[in-house]
Amino acid sequence: MNISKFKVEYWLNPLDDKAEYNLGSSCCQPVTVEQLLEMTGTDKEGFFQEISSMSLHYGYFEGMPRLKKAIAGLYTDAVSEDMILSVHGGTGANSIVCYALCEQGDNVVSILPNYQQYYSIPEAIGVEVRIFTCDAASGYAIDFDKIRAMVDENTKMINLANPNNPTGYTLTKGQLEELVDIAKSVDAYLVCDEIYRGLSDEYMYSICDLYEKGIATSSTSKVFSSAGTRVGWIVTRDLALKDTLMNMRSYHSICEGPINELIAAIVLENKDLFYKRNKNIVEEARAALYEWIKGQPHFKVACDSKSSTSFICYDFDIPALEFAQGLYEEKQVLVCHGACFEQEHSFRIGYGFGDVDYFKGGLARIGEYVKSLEEKGAI
Amino acid sequence: MNISKFKVEYWLNPLDDKAEYNLGSSCCQPVTVEQLLEMTGTDKEGFFQEISSMSLHYGYFEGMPRLKKAIAGLYTDAVSEDMILSVHGGTGANSIVCYALCEQGDNVVSILPNYQQYYSIPEAIGVEVRIFTCDAASGYAIDFDKIRAMVDENTKMINLANPNNPTGYTLTKGQLEELVDIAKSVDAYLVCDEIYRGLSDEYMYSICDLYEKGIATSSTSKVFSSAGTRVGWIVTRDLALKDTLMNMRSYHSICEGPINELIAAIVLENKDLFYKRNKNIVEEARAALYEWIKGQPHFKVACDSKSSTSFICYDFDIPALEFAQGLYEEKQVLVCHGACFEQEHSFRIGYGFGDVDYFKGGLARIGEYVKSLEEKGAI
Repeated sequence: MNISKFKVEYWLNPLDDKAEYNLGSSCCQPVTVEQLLEMTGTDKEGFFQEISSMSLHYGYFEGMPRLKKAIAGLYTDAVSEDMILSVHGGTGANSIVCYALCEQGDNVVSILPNYQQYYSIPEAIGVEVRIFTCDAASGYAIDFDKIRAMVDENTKMINLANPNNPTGYTLTKGQLEELVDIAKSVDAYLVCDEIYRGLSDEYMYSICDLYEKGIATSSTSKVFSSAGTRVGWIVTRDLALKDTLMNMRSYHSICEGPINELIAAIVLENKDLFYKRNKNIVEEARAALYEWIKGQPHFKVACDSKSSTSFICYDFDIPALEFAQGLYEEKQVLVCHGACFEQEHSFRIGYGFGDVDYFKGGLARIGEYVKSLEEKGAI
Repeated sequence: MNISKFKVEYWLNPLDDKAEYNLGSSCCQPVTVEQLLEMTGTDKEGFFQEISSMSLHYGYFEGMPRLKKAIAGLYTDAVSEDMILSVHGGTGANSIVCYALCEQGDNVVSILPNYQQYYSIPEAIGVEVRIFTCDAASGYAIDFDKIRAMVDENTKMINLANPNNPTGYTLTKGQLEELVDIAKSVDAYLVCDEIYRGLSDEYMYSICDLYEKGIATSSTSKVFSSAGTRVGWIVTRDLALKDTLMNMRSYHSICEGPINELIAAIVLENKDLFYKRNKNIVEEARAALYEWIKGQPHFKVACDSKSSTSFICYDFDIPALEFAQGLYEEKQVLVCHGACFEQEHSFRIGYGFGDVDYFKGGLARIGEYVKSLEEKGAI
C-alpha cells in the first residue's frame, strides 16, 4: 500500500540510544525484570520456575486469562474479560482497529494531534479522512460543534488519543460524553488511544466505560514502564466487533506469547504501584519544565499535561524538523519534532524517564541552543 | 477492510486444547524453556540472570544483533545481517510483506495451496489475485508454463509456501530457479513463506539465496519448536525494499521485545539440534502414516512431504469441513480440513508433535470413522 512514512519512528528510533540528552521518548522509566519482581513483591524463584517450565508453544489464542483479568481491572465494571483482546503492543492494537473498521465508502474523523496510524492507515486503505486539528491558540481544546458538523452517516469512526499525544491534554468525563453523543448521532465507533491514561489521583474514564461502541487501545509501554513485553490490548463492549477484530488479528499476529503475557499480567495486577511511581516522576519533571519555561520567552506550553509529555510551541520561523535537527547536532539533545504530529514550530518533550537533574540538563541545553540562534541572528 | 475469515485460525484455535487426538497443528514438538536450555547446553543461572537484569524497554528497533546473526546463519553467504528484519511471528512477516508490496493496479500471482494471508490480504487491499492451484492429480507439482503465462508487467509478486503448507511438497534448487526466471522476466518479487524449511539432510535453498528480489519469511514456530517466542523475520537482499518493509513494520508492531529475541537467538544458534531432533520426529511419524494409508482405500497422499504435515485426499463426496467436523465430534480427532486451503475433499494432518503412538491412535480413529461412514452408507 502507498502509506506515508511513519515520521515519529523514522525520527526517534535511529537516534534513541545516541543522544546525550534523550528527551524524545514518551515512556515512563522502564523497569528491569528484577525491579518489577521486587517492587511487586513477586517471588523471584517462583517466577523463574514458572518461566522455566513454560512450554514455548503458542500459549493463549484468546489471551492469558490472568492477563485479561488484570486488564479488565483497569476499567470500571462496564468492562469484563470477554471484551478484551490481547494484541502485539499499542501499535498492533491501533493497526488492527484501523484495518478492521475502515471500508471503501466510509469516512473517518481524526482529531489531531494524534498517533499517525489513525490517519495514515485509513488514507492508505483509500478511506476519506476528515481532520480536526486542535491548536495551541485554543489550548488544544476540541471544538465539539466543529466535530459534530464533520460527521455524517458514512462516518465509521471518530478517533483521538486521550490523554493526548503529544500535548497531554485530557478530556473530562463530561467532554468524553459530548464526543459519545456526537458518535451516537451517526452510529459511529469512537476509538481512543488511551496508552497514556492513568497518571492522575482521580480515575480517568475510558471510552469503554461510557459507550457501547467505544473502542479503547492501550499497552504496557508508557505508564506501565514495560514496552519490552510488547503486550497491548483492545477493549470493546461490542462483541460482534470483537469477533471482527479477532479475525483481523489472525492476519496480523495470532497471539502474544506466554512469557510476555505473564510479565504483563504481573505489571497490570500492580497498576497502582506504577500509577503512583510514574505520577510522581512526571509531576516532578513537569514542575521543572514549567519553572524553566517561565524564563524562555520564545517558548510556550499551551495546555496542561496529564501525561508523560508536553508539547512546546515556539514563536520563530524555523521548521520543526530543522529546529530538532539543529538541537540534536549542536547540543546533543533529542526531542520529537512537531511535524511528527503534523504541527509546525513545535516539539514534544518527554519527561517520564525519572531523572530530573538529567531533564534539567537537557532543558538548559535547549535554552543554550535558542540563545545561540539569537546570537547568530537566526531568530 | 472487507477481508475473508481466516479459516485455519477459526477452525483450529477453538479446538486446539480440546481434541483427544490433536493432529491439527503443524508445529514440531514445542520445548519448554528448561528443555531449550538443557538441549542447547545454555547455563541456566546465567540465562535467568540475563533476563533478570534486562530492561523492559523496547529493546532493539532493528532487531537484537545476536538474533540477526543467528538468522543469517540459516542461509548461504548471499544473506547477511543487514538484510534481516525481525518481526512479530511468521504471520507478522507475511502481513507486512503483503501490505508493503501491494498497490492498486498491481496483480499478484499466488500459488495454492498457500497460507491464506497471501491471497486474502491482497484481495482485501483491492489488488487482482491470479491463482494457480497445484492439484493432487499432478502430485502438487507447479506447472511453470502456466505460471509464466499468468505474469505480466503489473505482477508485483509471485508468492508460495516452500516447503508447501499443507502438502509438504518442496521445490528443488532447479525448480526455484525456474520460478526466479519467471519472476525476473517481469521484474516481480518472489515471496516464499519458508516456515517449514530445514527438515532435510540436504541444505534446502531459500529464495533469498537465489534471487536479489526474493523475499523469505519465517519464524521459530514450526521446525524450531518455539511458537511462543513470537519471533519471525523477513529476509531480502533488496535494501531499498527493506526500508519500505521497515516503515510498514512501524505501523504494524515496532519491535519484538528483548526477552523473546534472546530466546529466539538461543534457538536459532542451535538450529542443527532442532533440525535433527524434528527431522527424526517427523520421519518416524510420516513412515507410520504411509504404512497406515496402504490399508485405507479411500485415502491418498499425492506427494511426498519434507515438512511436518501431509495432505490427504479422499474419494467420497463429503465436503471437507463436514468430514472434519464429523471426525472431531464422533472420534475426538482434530485435523485441519482442506477448505482452509481452498481444497475440497481433503485434510491436513500434522505429525511433528513427537508421540508416534498417539499419532497411530489418531490414525486408527480416523480409520474407524471412515468405516462407520461406510457402514451407515454415507460413503
